[in-house]
Amino acid sequence: MNQRLGTTFDKDNILVTHGSQQGLDLSGKVFLDEGDIVLCESPTYLAAISALKAYGCSFTEIPTDENGMQMDALEEVLRHTENIKLIYAIPTFQNPTGRTWSLERRKKLAELSAQYNVAVIEDNPYGELRFEGEPLPSIKSFDTAGNVLCTGSFSKIFCPGFRIGWMAGDKDIIRKYVLVKQGTDLQCNTIAQMVIAKYLEHYDIDRHIAKIVDVYKRRRNVAIACIEKYFPPTIKFTNPEGGLFTWVELPEGIPAREILTKCLEKKVAFVPGGSFFPNANRENTFRINYSNMPEDRIEKGLRIIGEVVREYM
Amino acid sequence: MNQRLGTTFDKDNILVTHGSQQGLDLSGKVFLDEGDIVLCESPTYLAAISALKAYGCSFTEIPTDENGMQMDALEEVLRHTENIKLIYAIPTFQNPTGRTWSLERRKKLAELSAQYNVAVIEDNPYGELRFEGEPLPSIKSFDTAGNVLCTGSFSKIFCPGFRIGWMAGDKDIIRKYVLVKQGTDLQCNTIAQMVIAKYLEHYDIDRHIAKIVDVYKRRRNVAIACIEKYFPPTIKFTNPEGGLFTWVELPEGIPAREILTKCLEKKVAFVPGGSFFPNANRENTFRINYSNMPEDRIEKGLRIIGEVVREYM
Repeated sequence: MNQRLGTTFDKDNILVTHGSQQGLDLSGKVFLDEGDIVLCESPTYLAAISALKAYGCSFTEIPTDENGMQMDALEEVLRHTENIKLIYAIPTFQNPTGRTWSLERRKKLAELSAQYNVAVIEDNPYGELRFEGEPLPSIKSFDTAGNVLCTGSFSKIFCPGFRIGWMAGDKDIIRKYVLVKQGTDLQCNTIAQMVIAKYLEHYDIDRHIAKIVDVYKRRRNVAIACIEKYFPPTIKFTNPEGGLFTWVELPEGIPAREILTKCLEKKVAFVPGGSFFPNANRENTFRINYSNMPEDRIEKGLRIIGEVVREYM
Repeated sequence: MNQRLGTTFDKDNILVTHGSQQGLDLSGKVFLDEGDIVLCESPTYLAAISALKAYGCSFTEIPTDENGMQMDALEEVLRHTENIKLIYAIPTFQNPTGRTWSLERRKKLAELSAQYNVAVIEDNPYGELRFEGEPLPSIKSFDTAGNVLCTGSFSKIFCPGFRIGWMAGDKDIIRKYVLVKQGTDLQCNTIAQMVIAKYLEHYDIDRHIAKIVDVYKRRRNVAIACIEKYFPPTIKFTNPEGGLFTWVELPEGIPAREILTKCLEKKVAFVPGGSFFPNANRENTFRINYSNMPEDRIEKGLRIIGEVVREYM
């Protein structure tokens, strides 16, 4: 983990959590009071919005492009806004867009977090699932102020049902998380932790990851090829270097929720993009997850979505 | 479960939680805002205090006696206090006192909860562990207004490390818990749920419970006999009909935390009672958990505590 992320965590820097989702919930308890502000990518992971919103915060969305969160826009907001308590980011194979932040932006976020003394949650559930290109160091690896926290999980690389993730960071902050977790649920499932520990001891998880990366890469290839083949050429979409998602932008004014309703009649589903924007919904977007279906069904599903979109346009 | 509790829950009335502790945390999210008031037994389960306190509530302690929470005192508080959002109660083999509420008080709490329209959390982690006497119906079984929620767990009867508990109640309230749980941790451990489901299908859990009840009953017997034998006769203690705990009251002015320090030097531990009072600590009390040690070590431990107490007095 340290090797992958470019970090130097030891056991006092890590709390095992009930999935990385619990790390987000505990972050709300540790950092947020009613009225505080969280900065996030626009769009961002929808269940991070619900986890943090429970603590009465509001969200300021920072625009993104193919290189991640736009640092000029972020700095502008940091300079002019009070009560910012957290910056939430998914820099690698982002959910929902599949995009990956450039090295430069990773460094810059660590710098700004130190300069404005704001905590960062670097959420990294998909980082191990790289299909091509060079791995990039984590934001945490550039963190000189101890403000960056990393979350990760065994859900995407071992077994989702186990609900074993982690939160890692400065040991004084992690100590707060430990106390807050005690009140929340006492502890994680002991048996699941033992199974994972034994697996890591006796098996080669990197070999297992290589196997699933191969499966997902082929599915990504099929998905992208089908979008190119079946969708109208005016439609924009991302071509992720890893992870589970591609993000589709329809022309303005075409509501993905209506496309979804028609697709559901034909037994095909996707997640409409509006829910990934905490404030202004951009309803002409949707997320495709290509990871969970065999290739022939990916093709069939995308052909149907393509037909529905063409009809609608 | 319905048979034991005298309830009529079906699947829409139940949410599986990460241990019953998570049910308490989610209750804070569902019911509490900053400044709200929770009523509880004095003393009460200490981790319920930390779970709910995270949501900014304060506690009003209701006095208890050998028949449970005192209903006159409760009604007085209900009549004169605003912003009461929850009543938290452990009516069977209470933590920390080991006491069990009378039938009359169970009925009365359900009545008052309807009359003042306040939600009740009936926490029941130990109810199955009855050594003698007749089982009593749950508070929920007298609930005509749909205000009572029940929590329970497999931790004390199957395997603590699995972290599988439940919250059960009116289906409109449970629907809120479901939404709140999604934001908190998405879902429980799937494998643990499958293992428990298979166990319940293929094995006789009541036979397993009878086995552990037999073990704990013998340990309770040894613990009570040793307290009588080794403790000064002026000391009060409870003789529970089930569960894991007996509660000891030292004469006024004798601080259990100091007794604990001396006992720890001799490798014996207990939980000082002060932490079980959310407001005014009554430091001359402590909780003994007799469930986790073989009988010879229970005797040895209580002999040492008795000696330390005698020396101190």
